Parts: sequence; C-alpha cells; structure tokens
Amino acid sequence: MLGSELRDVDTPAVVIDRDVLDRNIARMAETVGASGLRLRPHVKTHKVPQIARLQLAAGACGLTVATIGEAEVFVEHGATDVLIAYPLWVGARQADRLRRLAGSARLAVGVDSAEGARAMGGSLGRDAGMLEVLVEVDSGHHRSGVAAASVVDVARAAADAGLRVAGVFTFPGHGYAPGMPLAAAAQEARALDVAVSRLRAAGFEAGWVSGGSTPTALLTETDSALTEVRPGVYVFGDAQQLELDRCGWEDLALTVAASVVSRHPGNADIPRRVVLDSGSKVLGSDRPAWTTGFGRVRECPGARVTALSEHHATLAWPEDAELPALGARLHVVPNHVCLTMNLVDEVVVVRDGRVVDRWAVAARGRNS
Amino acid sequence: MLGSELRDVDTPAVVIDRDVLDRNIARMAETVGASGLRLRPHVKTHKVPQIARLQLAAGACGLTVATIGEAEVFVEHGATDVLIAYPLWVGARQADRLRRLAGSARLAVGVDSAEGARAMGGSLGRDAGMLEVLVEVDSGHHRSGVAAASVVDVARAAADAGLRVAGVFTFPGHGYAPGMPLAAAAQEARALDVAVSRLRAAGFEAGWVSGGSTPTALLTETDSALTEVRPGVYVFGDAQQLELDRCGWEDLALTVAASVVSRHPGNADIPRRVVLDSGSKVLGSDRPAWTTGFGRVRECPGARVTALSEHHATLAWPEDAELPALGARLHVVPNHVCLTMNLVDEVVVVRDGRVVDRWAVAARGRNS
Repeated sequence: MLGSELRDVDTPAVVIDRDVLDRNIARMAETVGASGLRLRPHVKTHKVPQIARLQLAAGACGLTVATIGEAEVFVEHGATDVLIAYPLWVGARQADRLRRLAGSARLAVGVDSAEGARAMGGSLGRDAGMLEVLVEVDSGHHRSGVAAASVVDVARAAADAGLRVAGVFTFPGHGYAPGMPLAAAAQEARALDVAVSRLRAAGFEAGWVSGGSTPTALLTETDSALTEVRPGVYVFGDAQQLELDRCGWEDLALTVAASVVSRHPGNADIPRRVVLDSGSKVLGSDRPAWTTGFGRVRECPGARVTALSEHHATLAWPEDAELPALGARLHVVPNHVCLTMNLVDEVVVVRDGRVVDRWAVAARGRNS
Repeated sequence: MLGSELRDVDTPAVVIDRDVLDRNIARMAETVGASGLRLRPHVKTHKVPQIARLQLAAGACGLTVATIGEAEVFVEHGATDVLIAYPLWVGARQADRLRRLAGSARLAVGVDSAEGARAMGGSLGRDAGMLEVLVEVDSGHHRSGVAAASVVDVARAAADAGLRVAGVFTFPGHGYAPGMPLAAAAQEARALDVAVSRLRAAGFEAGWVSGGSTPTALLTETDSALTEVRPGVYVFGDAQQLELDRCGWEDLALTVAASVVSRHPGNADIPRRVVLDSGSKVLGSDRPAWTTGFGRVRECPGARVTALSEHHATLAWPEDAELPALGARLHVVPNHVCLTMNLVDEVVVVRDGRVVDRWAVAARGRNS
C-alpha cells in the first residue's frame, strides 16, 4: 500500500505527516541545543524506534521511557543511553530485566523513596552498581516525587544500597493548563536547584539534572541547575498543546483519519452533530477540564468533539459551517497523542498526501 | 506461569476472576431468557473468543460487535450469527470483507441514513441480499441513529438498494447516568415501538427489534416490541456500573492488579496520596462527570483515583485508612472495562487467587 493515496487507507487510521515530524524534531533539537541543555526526548509519546532514531540523529543525548518493557524495545532497536523516568518498584523479575538492559546500554532509573531504593538495591544485589539512579523531585505536580528538601534521605538510601546516585529529575506536569507553563517551568527550576544544592551539601555530585516537558521545555531558565529536558509530545503536537498555545495547527504532525458515519442537521429537540468512526478506541479519552472537548478537527477549527464512546466521536458542528457529507473523511487532532499511539499497532506515514511508510508502534502495550 | 500465584504476575495486569465471570454470564442469560427476550451480548466489551463461547454456551442467540474487524475475529473463532451494531459506511474494501463474512455466518449490519444504505447496497452490488440490515433508531442518546418517525425513509432506501431490512436497533446510552437507567429503558421501548409500527405500516416485517445495554437490559418493558437485548459490560462490571448501582463489589470480575510505586502521607501543602503503576495505559481515562473519579480500589472502597496520567494512577486515600506500603499490590476497578480490554494483549484468568489461564484479547485494536 506504499505510494497509495491517503484517502485509500481504511479509517480510523493514525496518520503521521513526515515533513511536519521532521520539522518538529529539528526545531526542538536546535532550540534546546542553543540553550546549552541536553535533550532526552520521552519516547513513550510515540513508541516507534524509527522516530527515536530521527531524534537521536538530530542530536538527542539519549532516550527517556516509562517502563522496563519500553526500555527493552528501544535498546533492542539500538538505543545506548536510556533513562526510565519512573520510580520503579524492583523485585527479582524486574532486577533480572534491568541487569540485562544495563549490560547493553547506559541505564538510569528513577527512585522517590528510601524503601524503593532499598528494594531496588536488594533485588539487584552485587549488580546494583550497574544502575544509575535519579531521585525524583515533586516540583508542584504532586504525583510521584519527594519534596526537594527530602532528596538527601532517598539518595543516601540509594547509595547505601549500592546504587550510583547520578542526580535528580522532575516532571512539571502542572504546566499542562492555561497560563501554567511559565509558572511550572519556574517551579521546576527552583525545585531542582534546591534539590541539587541539598545533594551537593551532602557530598553527592548530582551532575545530572533532568526536567520536563513539552509545555515547559522551551521556557526553562538557563541559569538553573538543569542539564537536560525530556519533552515528548513535541514531535507530534496535539489538541492540548494547541489549546495551550504551545503549537500551531501547522505544527500538528499526527491526526486520526476518520469517516463521517452519521450526520444530523439538528432541530429544536435534537442537537446538530456529526458522528465519526474515531471513538475512544483511537483518540483516547483524556479530557482535562480546561480543554474545549475531546479533540479538534483539521477541516473545521470551530468543531468540537463533545462526546466519545469507544467507536463513536460525536462532534458539535458550527451552525455557520456546512455539515460534512456522509462518508467524508476528516482528520481529528486528539487531545493527547501518547494515548492514541498506545491504541494502535501501526501508523501510516505520509508526505504530500501520499503514503510513504508504515511504522509499527513497537513499544505499544509494554506496560510493565 | 499457569498454576502460579496471582501475586507473581507483573503489574499492571488485567485479572479476570473466572468464578465471578461465570456467575455474571449465567445470571444475565437466565434473567433475559426468563423475560422471553433473546440475548445477543456485545463482545466489544471483552474482545475474547473464549468469553464469547461461554456466552453462547449459556444461551446467547448470537454476538454483537462494532466493527468489521471484530466480526472477522469472532467468525474466525466459530461465531455463526453476528450483528455489527454500527452504521457502517461501506466502500469497495468494506464490501469485500462483508461478502466474505456473510459467506461464513449470518451477518447483519446497522444503517442510519438513506445515503449509507445506498452506499452499502451500491458497493455490495448483486451481493447486497447477503446482508440483513437493522435501521438504527435514536432513543434519546443523540449519538448515531435516526428519529423513530424517520425509519421508513432509511428502510426504503435499503430495500431499494437490495439489502434485506430485518428490523431496528437502538442504544440507550443515556442510561449511563444516575437515576437514568429506568427512564432510558422506557424511552428505548417507546422509540422501538414507534419505529416498528411505522415500518409495519409501510409493509416491512421488522421482526428483529434490538435494544441495549448493561444498565437497561434488565429493566426492559416486556410488553414492548423488543425481541433481544445487547448488554456487554455485564460480564465484568466496572466502576461505572458499581456507582450506578447496577452491580455490587462481589459482581466485579475484572480488576487491574497494580503496585504502589509512590506514597505520601501528605501535609498542609501536599495532598495525602498513593501512586500506582496502573495509569491510563491500562485503566483508560473515561470519566463521566457523575463518577467519583477514574476508578475504585477493591482493598479500600473509600479511596478514589483522582488523577491519571499514562503511567501513574494517583489515589486520594482516606484519612482514617492506613496508607498501603510501597510495593503493595492493589486491585483497581476501572471506570469502563471496554477501554481496559482494548489496551492489553492478554489477560490473566484466576480462580481462588491462582492463575488458571491466560487469554489473548484477540480482537483488540480491530478498529475498522
């Protein structure tokens, strides 16, 4: 099916515009590079080895993943420097897998508790020194991570367990809201600065200081302790980034090709709407309260995905825009591209509307 | 790994309790059978041929699916009577697949517009008569489906296109809200009664009259025109059904085994919380406004999944309950089991806490 027209691909299908993808990868690499920071993109966003290779070729220092399974896929495909930015709970089976990985690549993992550090070190036994660990700091998102003032306790437990304490990381996820990226970037820098100074005062080198995220990566204060950033979504963009004004329509590299299966002009009793075959099975159903719906539509910026069920996306269609025809193909911008990539086994890669490649989502479903 | 203990399975993992599953299947079959209706379970909920076989063995008259791809999987695994309860838009490729399916099984599909009927009939050409079609009626959910008063136009277009008009179907999805199941079941019966009487007045037999849904299936008015119901979620139950009071904790056959990776007693500045490794990658992120969170936890009914990111489930933990230990295993009840099943390739089947089987989710990702 390579060389065919995009309109001949069955819907729903995840479509990657290769030119936009290349531009997004180059722009982030250049901007981060110019700031003197390293770029370690989070590849859970795409889970595709071909895209990771493009990122590394553009100058990324390594990759970020969220699970041991994701690390296995990317190392198998040639990655040599991987951070599992997650506070792993490591038992015997996880230790076996981490040992194998650390035999093939530089491997670092997150830790956010003394108990977690002791479990990790204990399960790895005399191989604990194969792993670098970064202590996770809570910079305001209040998910995982310890308060910056508490990093030394965790670092000491890790060192005592034989792990190599390399530094700290944080994810300023509270930057995913209107007006928040700048504030979150400032809190991130402040939390990391405090954490690093505590660690150094306690005798740790803490040379690796890693921050988020697509909304904040380009807002990072370069006079902070940060040494690298880990944005993920920037390769594709999505409706959240669009509505946060962190990308424009022209920066959207991923859309979901969908077909109109039901249309209703509406009347006093029944809402005006269009139904597409791109339900939550492909868009995912993330919908932060500040978003305008479950996604946007390239062909009609005024339309909103107002309801999602597994196989139906219901769109409110503007009164002043003509309803698309039954069978028409639209391109939906999901709220959160990471979820979309985790729902499909393959994506269609296009240039100028022609299919030039199909990529397997090799790390999809590697949940543990 | 069969015969092993559940606690030896890596997390996050989708766990099916076989005894509860069997009980749920038997109860729905008995109750629907006693009402004189046929049961045609929606197997998009589980996507597992082994579960479909249990449903058919318990007396289901056939299966319901949402896509051609799902129909292909279940027919390949022996299903002989399948309804694709979806207003398919049928082009040449879809017509080829429907022809093949209709050569191996009794096959019916949904239609909700004259244009859709003409496209379907046109693409199937002289094979159009291989398909039965059910006209989809909007009984108040306002997703796909036509008003009951408009069914004759669609049915005539279908018949003119050579399709066999067998009846009508509806999905009373507005029953998924507190206080709504009974009202939605009544609206469903009324809409189907109107639709059937219109069709019969126009000379259609309309002997197949199909309704939803787990919240409404047992509330159906037996003096209506309904001949069958299509519940799906009942096999597992989920947090939505629990909070709608359509099932109890003891009826939950599916949970997600998860590990505590981060815990925080909380203080004046930082919320008391537990973080599990069961993010939206396995729970899905459906969260209707009336639910109390993104899911529930078997070990602590007072806990709530208050935030989900792809790899983290953040739980608010009651002040009066002790925080679980790091590394502890909990069992999360997702809001919507259909999404969970669409996120994993395999599920673990247990009896009395021991692993007795592993089932492939064979129709996962068959999105079109």
